[in-house]
Amino acid sequence: MRAALALARRGLGNAWPNPAVGCVLVRNGQVVGRGWTQPGGRPHAETEALRRAGRLARGATAYVTLEPCSHHGRTPPCCDALTQAGVARVVMAMRDPDPRVNGRGLAMLRAAGILVEEGLLEAEARALNAGFFRRIEAGLPVATLKLATTLDGRIATATGESRWITGAEARREAHALRARHDAVLVGSGTVLADDPDLTCRIPGMERVPVLRVVADARLRTPVTARLVQTARVAPTCIVTVPGHPPAALAPYIAAGVEVLTAPAAETGLDLRALLGALARRGVTRILAEGGAGVAAGLLRARLVDRLAWFHAPGVMGGEGHPAVEGLRLAALAAMPRFRRVAVRPLGADLLTEFECIAEVPPCSPGS
Amino acid sequence: MRAALALARRGLGNAWPNPAVGCVLVRNGQVVGRGWTQPGGRPHAETEALRRAGRLARGATAYVTLEPCSHHGRTPPCCDALTQAGVARVVMAMRDPDPRVNGRGLAMLRAAGILVEEGLLEAEARALNAGFFRRIEAGLPVATLKLATTLDGRIATATGESRWITGAEARREAHALRARHDAVLVGSGTVLADDPDLTCRIPGMERVPVLRVVADARLRTPVTARLVQTARVAPTCIVTVPGHPPAALAPYIAAGVEVLTAPAAETGLDLRALLGALARRGVTRILAEGGAGVAAGLLRARLVDRLAWFHAPGVMGGEGHPAVEGLRLAALAAMPRFRRVAVRPLGADLLTEFECIAEVPPCSPGS
Repeated sequence: MRAALALARRGLGNAWPNPAVGCVLVRNGQVVGRGWTQPGGRPHAETEALRRAGRLARGATAYVTLEPCSHHGRTPPCCDALTQAGVARVVMAMRDPDPRVNGRGLAMLRAAGILVEEGLLEAEARALNAGFFRRIEAGLPVATLKLATTLDGRIATATGESRWITGAEARREAHALRARHDAVLVGSGTVLADDPDLTCRIPGMERVPVLRVVADARLRTPVTARLVQTARVAPTCIVTVPGHPPAALAPYIAAGVEVLTAPAAETGLDLRALLGALARRGVTRILAEGGAGVAAGLLRARLVDRLAWFHAPGVMGGEGHPAVEGLRLAALAAMPRFRRVAVRPLGADLLTEFECIAEVPPCSPGS
Repeated sequence: MRAALALARRGLGNAWPNPAVGCVLVRNGQVVGRGWTQPGGRPHAETEALRRAGRLARGATAYVTLEPCSHHGRTPPCCDALTQAGVARVVMAMRDPDPRVNGRGLAMLRAAGILVEEGLLEAEARALNAGFFRRIEAGLPVATLKLATTLDGRIATATGESRWITGAEARREAHALRARHDAVLVGSGTVLADDPDLTCRIPGMERVPVLRVVADARLRTPVTARLVQTARVAPTCIVTVPGHPPAALAPYIAAGVEVLTAPAAETGLDLRALLGALARRGVTRILAEGGAGVAAGLLRARLVDRLAWFHAPGVMGGEGHPAVEGLRLAALAAMPRFRRVAVRPLGADLLTEFECIAEVPPCSPGS
C-alpha cells in the first residue's frame, strides 16, 4: 500500500477533477502491475495496473489507495475491470466519499466473489487526497497560501521593488508548489504590479496544466496581461462580480479566458464563493500566491488550510509593503495560528510549511 | 583545546569586562587541572587550573584559549603563575589583542624557558570571544538583535496587545539569551509599553549580572518603572542625550540607576555612540530586545552583528505593530541581509539565528 500511495502522489496536481489514486497488483509475492491516475484523471490507476499486468492479474491482489469506482463515468467502472481480469482480492486504503461510489464499489466487488479489505493506511490516503475529499464533502478546494517575504513580513520596498527578495532555490520550489496544485490564485493587484505568467517553469514540469485564476472584482486585469495573452496555451480564469456588461467581458473571452462570477464582499470578492465556484469547476487544490489583499481575505474567512512561508534573510523595515493586509483582529486571541509541519532551508532562504489548526473550522479533513 | 574552549564558554555573559577563557593542564596524558574565567572576570582560567592541579602542574602542558596575561591588573600576571608552577609547555589558541598583552605574554613565557605554541583552533577561540575582541579592536560590543514576531513580522495588535505572541519555550530561550550577554538594551517605548524587568528568570541563572540598558533620549522612563525600582538588585543604566538638568536625572541616580550620555541622532540617540559608551563601561556582548525604533536604528547603522528571530506560527496582518520601524531604504539592494547559522524549533515557534554578512562593514571579527 505504501508503494501504491507513492504512485498516487505522482498524479497530484495532474489528476483533477479526479482523485490521485495508485494501484499495485501482487501475485505470489511479486508485483505484476502498477498504475496511477493519468493526467486529466483518466485512465484510472486500476486500469493502468491491469493493462500492465495482462494475464498475470488473474488471482492477484490489488492494493489500491481508494475504493474502485462503481459507476459509468467517462470510463467503465473499475470494479468491472478488476472482476473481469480475475483479481482474487482487493485491499483498499479507504472508501470513496464521492456519492456515486461510497461503498458501492466495495459491495460490487464482494458480490462478484472478490475478497475485499479496507482501511490499510487510511490516514495517509486521506491526507494525500485531502483536496478531492474537501471538494466532495465541503464543496471547496484545499487552499494553500504561499508567501515569500523578508523576516519582517515585507514583500516590496516603499517604491514597489520586489525582485528578488527570495533566492533562486526558493523561487524554484515555489514553481514546484504550483505543479502540485490544480490551480493558482492571485489578485488583480498582483497582475497589475508583476504581470506574472504563473506557469511552472521547471524542466519536465512545464506541461502540467495549472489553471491560473485571477480574483478581479473590478475587471482591472489588462487584456494585454500575460495571463490573458497566453490563455490559449495555459488555461486562465478570471473571477469577477456578476453584472459586468457583456462588452467588458468580451475581450477576455475572445482571448480564451474563462470568466466565472462570485458575489462582492466588503473588500473585493467573496472568496469562499470564489473557491466554491472553482470546486464546481473541478479544482481540488489551489495555491494562493497573493497579493496582500487575497492573503488577508483568505485568512479572515479561515479559508487557508496550508501555509507555505518563504522567509528571506533580510529585514525591510516598516515602510515596506506588508505581505498581508489588515485582518481587523478584535484581540490577539483571534489571530489565525497554524501548526508547523516542515522546515526546509532553500539556499539562504527558509521555507516553513504549516497546516491550519483543527480547532478553527473549517479545516482540511484528516490532515 | 576543545575541552578548554568548552570550559571558556561557561564564562560567557559572566566574565565581562574580561574575555571568557578556558585552561586545561595535561601531564603524562592525564588532565591534572581545569579552569575557566570566574564571574566578574577573576580569578583567571589559568589561576583556577593551577590551583586545582597543585604540585601536578610541574612539567605539564597548559592548553589555554587565549594568550596568558603579562600585566599586573587586578591579579598578578598569569605568565608568572605558569612559570612558578613549573609548567613545561603552553599551547594557546590565539594571541590576546588587548594592547597590554598582544604577544608580551608569549615572549615572557619563552623567556622563562617554556615551550610555547600558538594558533590551535584559533578560529573557534576568536568566535567565542568575538565580543571581547570587538570591544578591544573597534571600541564596540558585539550586538545581537532579538525579535519575537508573527510570521508577518508583527509584535502587537493594533490595540497594543502583545502577550503572548510566542510560547513558553521561546520565552525561556529568550531568557537564556540574556544570560549569554553582558547587557540587555531596550528603548524607552518598550519600558512604557511593557514595563519589563529584563532579568534572566531561569532557575540557576537568576544571579547572572546582566546590565539592563534603556536608550532614552527624552528621559521618558518613569521612575516607578521596574527597571528603575530594582536598580539596586540588578544594575540598570539609562543612556540619554547630554544637557538634561541635574534635577531631571536626580531621581534615577537616587534609585541607583547609572546615567550615561550619547549624542542625539535624527531619531532618538546615536546608537553607535551609545554602544561605544557601553564598551568603555566594559560591555562586550549586548542583546537588543526592541522596540521597533531601537531595532531600526541598529539596522540602519549596520550595528547588528547577530540576529535571533523568533517566529510564532500566527499571522497578524497589516494593522499590527511592525517589529522594525522604517529603514529608509533607497533600493532593495540596500536591505540589510544576514546569513542563517541555525534553525531551532521551540514548541510551536521557530528560532532562526543569523550573522551579519561580512561584506557589509562593520561585522564581528572572525565569525
